[in-house]
Amino acid sequence: MADWHRERAERDGRIAAGRAQAAGKVVPAASAVALLEAILRPGDRVCLEGDNQKQADCLARALSLCDPAKVHDLHMVQSGIVLPEHLDIFEQGIAKRLDYSYSGPQGGRIARMLFGGQIELGAVHTYLELFARYFIDLTPQVALIAGVSADRDGNLYTGPNTEDTPTVVEATAFKNGIVVAQVNEIVDRVPRVDIPGDRVDFVVAADTPFYVEPLFTRDPAAMTETQILMAMMAIKGIYAEYGIRRLNHGIGFGTAAIELLLPTYAERLGLRGKIATHWALNPHPTLIPAIESGWVSQVHCFGSEVGMDRYIRERPDVFFTGSDGSLRSNRAFCQTAGLYACDLFIGSTLQIDLSGHSSTVTQSRVAGFGGAPNMGSDPHGRRHPSDTWMKAGREAGGSGDPALTRGRKLVVQIVETFGDKLSPAFVERLDALELARKIGLELAPVMVYADDVTHIVTEEGIANLLLCRTADEREQAIRGVAGYTEIGRGRDRAMVERLRARGIVRRPEDLGIEPLDADRSLLAARSIKDLVHWSGGLYDPPARFRNW
Amino acid sequence: MADWHRERAERDGRIAAGRAQAAGKVVPAASAVALLEAILRPGDRVCLEGDNQKQADCLARALSLCDPAKVHDLHMVQSGIVLPEHLDIFEQGIAKRLDYSYSGPQGGRIARMLFGGQIELGAVHTYLELFARYFIDLTPQVALIAGVSADRDGNLYTGPNTEDTPTVVEATAFKNGIVVAQVNEIVDRVPRVDIPGDRVDFVVAADTPFYVEPLFTRDPAAMTETQILMAMMAIKGIYAEYGIRRLNHGIGFGTAAIELLLPTYAERLGLRGKIATHWALNPHPTLIPAIESGWVSQVHCFGSEVGMDRYIRERPDVFFTGSDGSLRSNRAFCQTAGLYACDLFIGSTLQIDLSGHSSTVTQSRVAGFGGAPNMGSDPHGRRHPSDTWMKAGREAGGSGDPALTRGRKLVVQIVETFGDKLSPAFVERLDALELARKIGLELAPVMVYADDVTHIVTEEGIANLLLCRTADEREQAIRGVAGYTEIGRGRDRAMVERLRARGIVRRPEDLGIEPLDADRSLLAARSIKDLVHWSGGLYDPPARFRNW
Repeated sequence: MADWHRERAERDGRIAAGRAQAAGKVVPAASAVALLEAILRPGDRVCLEGDNQKQADCLARALSLCDPAKVHDLHMVQSGIVLPEHLDIFEQGIAKRLDYSYSGPQGGRIARMLFGGQIELGAVHTYLELFARYFIDLTPQVALIAGVSADRDGNLYTGPNTEDTPTVVEATAFKNGIVVAQVNEIVDRVPRVDIPGDRVDFVVAADTPFYVEPLFTRDPAAMTETQILMAMMAIKGIYAEYGIRRLNHGIGFGTAAIELLLPTYAERLGLRGKIATHWALNPHPTLIPAIESGWVSQVHCFGSEVGMDRYIRERPDVFFTGSDGSLRSNRAFCQTAGLYACDLFIGSTLQIDLSGHSSTVTQSRVAGFGGAPNMGSDPHGRRHPSDTWMKAGREAGGSGDPALTRGRKLVVQIVETFGDKLSPAFVERLDALELARKIGLELAPVMVYADDVTHIVTEEGIANLLLCRTADEREQAIRGVAGYTEIGRGRDRAMVERLRARGIVRRPEDLGIEPLDADRSLLAARSIKDLVHWSGGLYDPPARFRNW
Repeated sequence: MADWHRERAERDGRIAAGRAQAAGKVVPAASAVALLEAILRPGDRVCLEGDNQKQADCLARALSLCDPAKVHDLHMVQSGIVLPEHLDIFEQGIAKRLDYSYSGPQGGRIARMLFGGQIELGAVHTYLELFARYFIDLTPQVALIAGVSADRDGNLYTGPNTEDTPTVVEATAFKNGIVVAQVNEIVDRVPRVDIPGDRVDFVVAADTPFYVEPLFTRDPAAMTETQILMAMMAIKGIYAEYGIRRLNHGIGFGTAAIELLLPTYAERLGLRGKIATHWALNPHPTLIPAIESGWVSQVHCFGSEVGMDRYIRERPDVFFTGSDGSLRSNRAFCQTAGLYACDLFIGSTLQIDLSGHSSTVTQSRVAGFGGAPNMGSDPHGRRHPSDTWMKAGREAGGSGDPALTRGRKLVVQIVETFGDKLSPAFVERLDALELARKIGLELAPVMVYADDVTHIVTEEGIANLLLCRTADEREQAIRGVAGYTEIGRGRDRAMVERLRARGIVRRPEDLGIEPLDADRSLLAARSIKDLVHWSGGLYDPPARFRNW
């Protein structure tokens, strides 16, 4: 007779073994290695919480100290590969297979280890699709997560950086998995319950607070006039034209410049209340001036940002906050919001080819894309119209019955024609394709595919790809904003002028923008200190951003 | 100086007013109307939990009994319009504007009320995009939800029908909204915490248990040989060919027949373990024989199904269950899983046009599509390959560099050429377009757009639209499986034969299927009673499905 309780019995056995290291659910940091050795089995699928920002670093260290004779061949399923320990465990044989989403700092090392055969790669996902697979075929057997505090029943307070935690815990705890949380402190009563205690099996009192990276802080002092010019074009040529109210911004300086131009340049254009009111966005410090100027109705966040906690707490009308007053972020819901509820995604990239395919992958790094491919794609399942979305849909045209016209998500790439070290942003062929060939990826790591990109903004102008009707027009529209790169110099000048006459290529002068006006004096804040001032002293930037 | 705590202060004031009706958080059913009148304000965005299955019916009745002089012009933002009260409140002036997803039983009345101007329609969404907007621009000010039990702190047990509740509560409670839960009973300690008490402001002890509709029960006794033939073709011609392991099934008899053929027909084809192992699916009773025969690795559920609770409780290796032993469903995560983690969606429809656009909307009903447009679309943000997905992508072809080949979601429509009352499933123009014109919808209610459909299965054969290279080929492929409908009779016979030679149109005999073998004896269960037997007596069908 079939045993339908195998998983549950297995789980109960592991928990009983783990209890030997615990007082109730509470485990001292010194016993974390023994706990993991007691509850892990070779081949387990394990989510070691490595989010975009928050890291379960105490548990990562403990895992890397496990005896590979006992704990080996794990299949790691986690969104971020951020800490050295996340890869050390592959070198030690503790882990074998990897499915992940994002790896900024470890991208180079991953590429070398893939090439050397030290990592068996499943796939590089977007956050949301990895979360989706947690419920289908990549359900974790063990989740090692991080919170701010817990009570002795395991009720967990994640604080502002809730991020991936509810998703990881739901997939694990409800499918006979084991959840271990490291917390900064054990308390009698948590300030709010982010995760109910009956989903948490063990609580490890960490030796140090969990690590968080300030990933979304852009110093206005480093913003260039080129970025300001591009931001002006995006605001006047895209945000105003399409009336974009619901949106997501990427992480770069170009979009941060847009945020800082809202209370100045966009205000003078009379756009307050007409654009950029509802956001799926982390709490970017560069959004503070726009919030303080009454531009922003509300912001839902993927995670938090270091130094923004006090400011958020004092702006509950804008941010999602809990009964304790601090931010409640949630990456799964915010990615869903970015996918289905936003009319525009705008972000940067490293390379764009002649069709409009783009990638941030270079020949030597497999960084992953995090959320960009999800938010930077046209969701065919969308069924609610907005003026913005319908206008873009009409521009894209399409064959047949006009009664069947649907909308389009605006997906904008904002790039300088030459990036770091003067490498051109426009290329004949993406480096990503060569990398895929070299390390044997079945699917090339393209960030945004050509059929999803609607606009490219450079310092030379805006290319509206929606209006292009042939592959040739598309190529020339891209060449037409590619500046002095080889791609740009290879343009058919007469055709680009014809595209310009049709509004497919638009120069600053076509938009009534004087490039000499693109001055740093337009920035609502010109330094981190200005941002602190705008916030009324509530923003508390990390030390590395302070020079006063 | 700006007041950044307006929403929160407003919320605190409303809660104080509501407390007059409560003992702590607990409100007797008799005081529900007074509670709602105390906490609601004209123009509020309100989510009155009407899910695909579970209904907050006690609160719906209370809302419909509110004094329209006090409570009026509400903006209802809820996934299901199911109960008469959901529309009564519009007639009474209590509600004015509506954003929703699905309305099976009330589709006709909504259409009449839209036409009569009694409802101001926002849009008809998929579930996931409505959830997405909860975090951006449709955040509820008040959520009226349903659970099985609560303790006096408001900790909530939803039981197997968790469905939309965590999503609704998260959007409301963390954005200064008020959460009111109706529960079947108040207990000292809930069996598990589905919603932490600090997100719940009031608990109403309902006079009757909340209503749940058994939407996903298909009686095998009603299955026809035509449906069995189509199911055989789908299994051999699609599931086996593409090796589909991760999938979602729609609600119709065609897909229920597939479920019942897995342990018989598919078993004989040697497909166990090779197809249909991981599911995003409600607990369909017709899946019981496949589960019992060892076909199914795991199932994640949107909601539950009436009568399946005991069976699920005894199959924890297959279903997601909580510490209390019962199902934990979650519509938001399951829809995300259907979108991003499944390789195939297969469902039925009422009308398909010559391009392949389909809709379940008829001239007189605005039923909404629920989840189908979300799961029945090709997610461009997907970045993880699978053999199934890559094979479909290669078939779809595409221009340019083969290194840029990506995969495709398989989206299959399974329909009989003539439906109820002999109305043809294939039409020149969808009724949905005429309805949209008549009631002034900006976006026609298309369920699945042509560019997302990959296969159409009818009793005449399978049309593989991925392999079509021109609009003409596509039209003839569709005509080629449209049987004796006018569309089918209008085919170019020579061209259809050429498409058949290329494998674009496949007849049963091309697949090695003998139509005479499509016999009810192939069904693993031929009645509801058989299903009960397969379940070892654990499945407890609702009375209306019992005839013994």
